[in-house]
Amino acid sequence: MKFIDLDTPAVIIDRNIADANLRRAQDYADAHGLPLRPHVKTHKLPLFAKRQIELGAVGITCQKLGEAEAMADAGIADIFIPYNIVGADKLDRLNALHRRLTLSVSADSRPTVEGYAGHFTDASHPLPVLIECDTGAKRCGVQSPQEALELARLIDAAPGLHFEGLMTYPPRGKGAEVDQWFKSAKKMLNDAGLEVARISNGGSPDLYAAAEVTSATEHRPGTYIYSDRMQVSFGLGTLEDCALSVLATVVSRPTPDRAVLDAGSKALAADRSDAPGHGHIVDYPQAVVTGLSEEHAVVDLSGCATKPAVGDKVRVIPNHVCVVSNLFDAVHLIDGQEVIARVPVAARGRVT
Amino acid sequence: MKFIDLDTPAVIIDRNIADANLRRAQDYADAHGLPLRPHVKTHKLPLFAKRQIELGAVGITCQKLGEAEAMADAGIADIFIPYNIVGADKLDRLNALHRRLTLSVSADSRPTVEGYAGHFTDASHPLPVLIECDTGAKRCGVQSPQEALELARLIDAAPGLHFEGLMTYPPRGKGAEVDQWFKSAKKMLNDAGLEVARISNGGSPDLYAAAEVTSATEHRPGTYIYSDRMQVSFGLGTLEDCALSVLATVVSRPTPDRAVLDAGSKALAADRSDAPGHGHIVDYPQAVVTGLSEEHAVVDLSGCATKPAVGDKVRVIPNHVCVVSNLFDAVHLIDGQEVIARVPVAARGRVT
Repeated sequence: MKFIDLDTPAVIIDRNIADANLRRAQDYADAHGLPLRPHVKTHKLPLFAKRQIELGAVGITCQKLGEAEAMADAGIADIFIPYNIVGADKLDRLNALHRRLTLSVSADSRPTVEGYAGHFTDASHPLPVLIECDTGAKRCGVQSPQEALELARLIDAAPGLHFEGLMTYPPRGKGAEVDQWFKSAKKMLNDAGLEVARISNGGSPDLYAAAEVTSATEHRPGTYIYSDRMQVSFGLGTLEDCALSVLATVVSRPTPDRAVLDAGSKALAADRSDAPGHGHIVDYPQAVVTGLSEEHAVVDLSGCATKPAVGDKVRVIPNHVCVVSNLFDAVHLIDGQEVIARVPVAARGRVT
Repeated sequence: MKFIDLDTPAVIIDRNIADANLRRAQDYADAHGLPLRPHVKTHKLPLFAKRQIELGAVGITCQKLGEAEAMADAGIADIFIPYNIVGADKLDRLNALHRRLTLSVSADSRPTVEGYAGHFTDASHPLPVLIECDTGAKRCGVQSPQEALELARLIDAAPGLHFEGLMTYPPRGKGAEVDQWFKSAKKMLNDAGLEVARISNGGSPDLYAAAEVTSATEHRPGTYIYSDRMQVSFGLGTLEDCALSVLATVVSRPTPDRAVLDAGSKALAADRSDAPGHGHIVDYPQAVVTGLSEEHAVVDLSGCATKPAVGDKVRVIPNHVCVVSNLFDAVHLIDGQEVIARVPVAARGRVT
């Protein structure tokens, strides 16, 4: 089947572009001796998680417990959840997961560590915990190396926990500052007699500058597999490196300069990027997606030399691809014009 | 079970608030003799579609074929799809649906009408088609009464189609202009010998001014069942009328003024409203959700007299509730503090 014959809206993924994105990143990592631990939040597919490991990744990263369980069910053996796992239900599930595979998690506060310590008590099989550090992104994370030291001592004192190291979700373009933060914290921890076995950095925008953070022992890129308009605006490759697009049909041409597609915010998501509009139409690069309703995209064709007709199908590269994966129960892999496979998005809907 | 004991993130719907919203709207419609045809895109739940009909709705509205099929499977007998249904696959499915129940659709172009005419040829059971009119919202729709007349003649000439009337997705706060548009078109159509049996208007923001569009024979409100921050900013009720919220856990308190919740853009969606931030935290009304990542909401607590701790759960009213329904496979109905039922979102994932 040709992808153009798919009913719309449909997610199509060019497997050759995706694989080239994976190989390019792994080659960079290998050349710099920096282990990769790809983040599966972007694709939520065991197929690609396995491919990432096959290419050399040391394990994977999941952003939540449900994602990790889906990947464990698919046979992935080494998973890092860089998240504060909070609450008795989740801690029970975390414990079950820890018995199945090599698992590690993060913490940035005393209550989170105390939760782990209360649910993990087997000193012969301790839970590895990394401390999340706020190196400038102003999301989660301890605010200073001193806070990291205090939390590391708490982890180290819990028989069922193992203090494994540090992690961050870094601010973009601030590799030197991130590196300095990690080095200061590592020195303080080492001076206190605590070993820092692992320092985990992340992010796709700075993926090809990841080796400059010399303190890091691993990197967790996510969006690099598909890329999107946001990543391109951040400087990661070009639109030609975007592997995922949403196939949509032109359902209305109400005026000479307006088209309406059958892909709205329930297919493309409303996330904004620095580029104008709500997506890049591959087939009409001068078109601008000026607005989204739930099931409509309104497109300004005034800059286009040729214009699509009602019934024509077009491909739209989303602003933010990770949230699009989360909207579809299945995606289609393509090779050139051919649909190779329809793949269920295994970890979609695992909301907790 | 108390809703506070649900694992997070979770969607909770106060059934009493939702039911009050439905009753208030139906009472208004009844008082003004204006039939309601509620739009199920907001809830995607047969349960509420049936309740809307029980209260007096003349049928329901679905924004896409997959949604309509899910509602047909649940026994709904009268469905309007105000959308250009384009492409052979969808037209075959539309035909199957037409044989099951009272169905009507819209069209705004010759190619769409020709598609219907090619797939519906039974003159004894014609497909009712309404012409979509662009009354100012600049999405789909014919641009003038004259265009409506030309398209109506095309529909009228097709043996398997029945020209039923006009519909619009109106601009907000422009009832007088919408009414004028409809009246002009109706006169032109009547003068040409075409009956206009149905004129369908829509939208929740102007729901309680719907009767002022005296030309309309039905109204299609959608979001009014749950309401959200966007509707409140448009003037529909208050935050106390919002029936749906996302229960989230505080997973980090990295600074005195910052909290991080486990509900990000994959739970709350990135849609913006006129109100600041990405949602209203019921329990901390002075808090501002300043940013969303996929699985984190960053909250500024600087305006709050009391502040939540790690592990506390809070309720967040989303900016746009219809896209939130589309992110969760199931929602929870509550009555006071009690969870009454966990309900699968039947029409979620019906992407085509």
